[in-house]
Amino acid sequence: LLNEKEFHMSKTLLELADHLGGQIIGDPDVTIYGLGTLDNATEGQITFLANPKYTQKVGTTKASAVILPPGVDSFGHNAVVVANPYLAFAKLLTLFTSKPRVVKGIMDGAFVSIEAIVGKDASIYPGVCIADGVRMGDRVTIYPHVTIYEGVVLGDDVTLHAGVSVREGCKIGDRVTIHNGSIIGADGFGYVPDGQAWFKIPQIGIVVIEDDVEIGASTTIDRAALEVTRIGRGTKIDNLVQVGHNCTIGENCVIVAQAGIAGSSQLGKHVTLGGQVAITDHISIGDNAMIAGQSGVFGSVAPGEVLSGTPAIPHKTRLKAAAVFSHLPEMRRSIARMGNRLTKVEEGGTPPQVI
Amino acid sequence: LLNEKEFHMSKTLLELADHLGGQIIGDPDVTIYGLGTLDNATEGQITFLANPKYTQKVGTTKASAVILPPGVDSFGHNAVVVANPYLAFAKLLTLFTSKPRVVKGIMDGAFVSIEAIVGKDASIYPGVCIADGVRMGDRVTIYPHVTIYEGVVLGDDVTLHAGVSVREGCKIGDRVTIHNGSIIGADGFGYVPDGQAWFKIPQIGIVVIEDDVEIGASTTIDRAALEVTRIGRGTKIDNLVQVGHNCTIGENCVIVAQAGIAGSSQLGKHVTLGGQVAITDHISIGDNAMIAGQSGVFGSVAPGEVLSGTPAIPHKTRLKAAAVFSHLPEMRRSIARMGNRLTKVEEGGTPPQVI
Amino acid sequence: LLNEKEFHMSKTLLELADHLGGQIIGDPDVTIYGLGTLDNATEGQITFLANPKYTQKVGTTKASAVILPPGVDSFGHNAVVVANPYLAFAKLLTLFTSKPRVVKGIMDGAFVSIEAIVGKDASIYPGVCIADGVRMGDRVTIYPHVTIYEGVVLGDDVTLHAGVSVREGCKIGDRVTIHNGSIIGADGFGYVPDGQAWFKIPQIGIVVIEDDVEIGASTTIDRAALEVTRIGRGTKIDNLVQVGHNCTIGENCVIVAQAGIAGSSQLGKHVTLGGQVAITDHISIGDNAMIAGQSGVFGSVAPGEVLSGTPAIPHKTRLKAAAVFSHLPEMRRSIARMGNRLTKVEEGGTPPQVI
Repeated sequence: LLNEKEFHMSKTLLELADHLGGQIIGDPDVTIYGLGTLDNATEGQITFLANPKYTQKVGTTKASAVILPPGVDSFGHNAVVVANPYLAFAKLLTLFTSKPRVVKGIMDGAFVSIEAIVGKDASIYPGVCIADGVRMGDRVTIYPHVTIYEGVVLGDDVTLHAGVSVREGCKIGDRVTIHNGSIIGADGFGYVPDGQAWFKIPQIGIVVIEDDVEIGASTTIDRAALEVTRIGRGTKIDNLVQVGHNCTIGENCVIVAQAGIAGSSQLGKHVTLGGQVAITDHISIGDNAMIAGQSGVFGSVAPGEVLSGTPAIPHKTRLKAAAVFSHLPEMRRSIARMGNRLTKVEEGGTPPQVI
Repeated sequence: LLNEKEFHMSKTLLELADHLGGQIIGDPDVTIYGLGTLDNATEGQITFLANPKYTQKVGTTKASAVILPPGVDSFGHNAVVVANPYLAFAKLLTLFTSKPRVVKGIMDGAFVSIEAIVGKDASIYPGVCIADGVRMGDRVTIYPHVTIYEGVVLGDDVTLHAGVSVREGCKIGDRVTIHNGSIIGADGFGYVPDGQAWFKIPQIGIVVIEDDVEIGASTTIDRAALEVTRIGRGTKIDNLVQVGHNCTIGENCVIVAQAGIAGSSQLGKHVTLGGQVAITDHISIGDNAMIAGQSGVFGSVAPGEVLSGTPAIPHKTRLKAAAVFSHLPEMRRSIARMGNRLTKVEEGGTPPQVI
Repeated sequence: LLNEKEFHMSKTLLELADHLGGQIIGDPDVTIYGLGTLDNATEGQITFLANPKYTQKVGTTKASAVILPPGVDSFGHNAVVVANPYLAFAKLLTLFTSKPRVVKGIMDGAFVSIEAIVGKDASIYPGVCIADGVRMGDRVTIYPHVTIYEGVVLGDDVTLHAGVSVREGCKIGDRVTIHNGSIIGADGFGYVPDGQAWFKIPQIGIVVIEDDVEIGASTTIDRAALEVTRIGRGTKIDNLVQVGHNCTIGENCVIVAQAGIAGSSQLGKHVTLGGQVAITDHISIGDNAMIAGQSGVFGSVAPGEVLSGTPAIPHKTRLKAAAVFSHLPEMRRSIARMGNRLTKVEEGGTPPQVI
């Protein structure tokens, strides 16, 4: 299907190599019009080799150029050599498919408080509501039916898709993208028992989302009770994720869909949470830890650990134990049978020994 | 409570039997004004027998007619005989409660691009935003605060409830209903590591939703990286479900609330996923497979399998193993004790035998 | 950070003690301007002792007054003695931080049917859509892009945040707050098999939300098939929770984020569901039961039970069994080895005994 895409652009191989910081093999002046896979690329396209086991396919591809890792035969093709061909491919895909941003201004049907500050070159669609005291950087794109409550601060180059809400006083950094329907800064879930009823603890903190964060659709990040719920720079959050009040998520974390992090827990840098993971409240997850999908983590995790299961234990240990799980009934029967046999032996039930 | 409902309609038993394709026992001219349960139906209502164990209740119901499966005594009541009485009841409930669709046109406060194509007899509510290049079939109903991005195609008789977003270029078939707040076609979750940071892979594919699909509230279906994320004809998806990029869901699947399907996985036809199920990425689930609620599936599943647990194993095996789980501590102690007893026996610790 | 907050208010200790119904120790006329923690409070602030293990900190706090439980030394500080200092602190935090509600009326850009009834002192923001036959009490606050379908009833002092939908005919009590993007009364998930396809069962019931309920963001509560889905008075529901059709949730329950309750299940009073809990359909959870996070409950639960795991069993039993889980492979090996040893013993393989 890549082949069916129209890429409204052409570049010489030299331009692409410059863009990637790669070395050219072959003709630097060949013109490239788009991208394709090793199998499906056609003349005029560039392809890439990410997995060495497909090296032979480089020989047969119809692409006009190939992105290669160092030390791999180009089979006579034009090539660009880079350390990470998959990353390079993503960069070229971005180059070929990104469209120029259109500045629409504040469109008819948008409600922008006269006490809000709008930066340069904004695109603010119909139905957007921006309250008093909001401050926005330059080049923000705010799609329909976004609501920005009082006192919110947005950085430069922020994109908020349709239906996003940003609640009172929250702060969003530069180059942050939030997909449709996500809710930033709704009240944290805090109550004190008052007899059988529950008395609400005011949630008067905020959410801070640092630069270069991307947040998926229908995700909820609660405001702090006091202080701050923080999403660290460069972190990527998928759809339908819950981040509780007063959490701190470090830089460059990856949090997959439907994961949930309970109140006041802290993630270090570059932590990965799989889909549907649950992190209990008030714990710490160390840098570079990885939690497999659907795991439940009920205690703090050291840096670099790889855990799975509920309660989460080291992933390799869990795989071995899980492999035995289905044998539990036969194990139990074996134990019972051996107990009987042992009793017989103890009672002299063994066949008499010839001495 | 069924009895308290007002059904603004009356039909003869003959008309109902024709509607259902069933056989009449008794008086075809009796007039039916509504529906009720075997226990609570009153004169003028029709009821149904779905479970043979309640056959005796047919004798005592006050309903004016009963929907029966073949070969069951009508106890002198008027009856309609059909193969599937529960299905027939659902069909009559639909008949008695469906209201005529009101054509509202494009209402004041809707923002419809002049470069969008609106079919016949649309109802488009205030606050709806429809971008350039959108094409819609006939009789669409678009509730407030729906945002339809550029180039989207909607079929005939589509209903989008308040707050739905349909992102750039996605295609939605005929008779599709999407409940409030669901997000079709937000970016898939794809990044390449670039040192500690993450480089975004452009998500330039689309979502295709085939005919007769119904999608619940606050569900997210991500656009493909390239190509298509596809929801097959007749599939029903509940609330808060996540479908990752490049997934293919077959026809007539049932996906219960809060289930999640990771990227590039494929479901066959008539697959059932229980609530909170997790399907990992890049696997296949065969036709008619059933995955019990809260299970985690980490490998491909053959057609017709019934699995449960995390990791998912055959449901019956799991039930037996789970029943033993709470005995683990005593099993471990038994093993230790038996080891000690066995050592004693081996060391001659058994009582001396009289030979 | 509490110290950085501005509390635009001052009260004497007497006023605060009256508000709390507590006893004063020391100077009733000291003026209090805000709140702080034992460690960080400064002069002019009041703090509290909730956990007796921090009693020594009362001696060193710089706060001008301390909220204490009965029988604790005030170390010469001004104090207010109450039964529950944490609750008292929450009440004072509410007192010091709550802002007077501003009555905005029906703002430009709101779409309110002339056949809807709006009570006194409403604040209805731009983009709100209120359909025919809606009745609202006094002092409702309806944020942008809320859609209220036909025939809905709202009580007094209801707050609906941006993006909420309330579907046809649902009823919401007094002092109910619903956070952004939550969906009340979308169709329940009910279909009858009709060959390979699914025939939709009309969902013609409603949702009733009783007084003093608070619901988080992006939560979905489905309308009943017939009759009512009910959320009991005082219950608190977190974000991204799913409540299926025909469920009845009792009074003062607490349901943490991402939990899901399948159709027709019933929760008693004061039930607690942890995050990501799954409750299957058609079961009952007794009063005061507590279900730990990520558990799956597949059968009814007696009052007061504390369960965890999938399938859920008593929490203490589960903790003990889970602690053994990782030893499964070695247990299986032990069983096999002991079987071999036992066979040897049985076959006379024990070393000859000296008699």
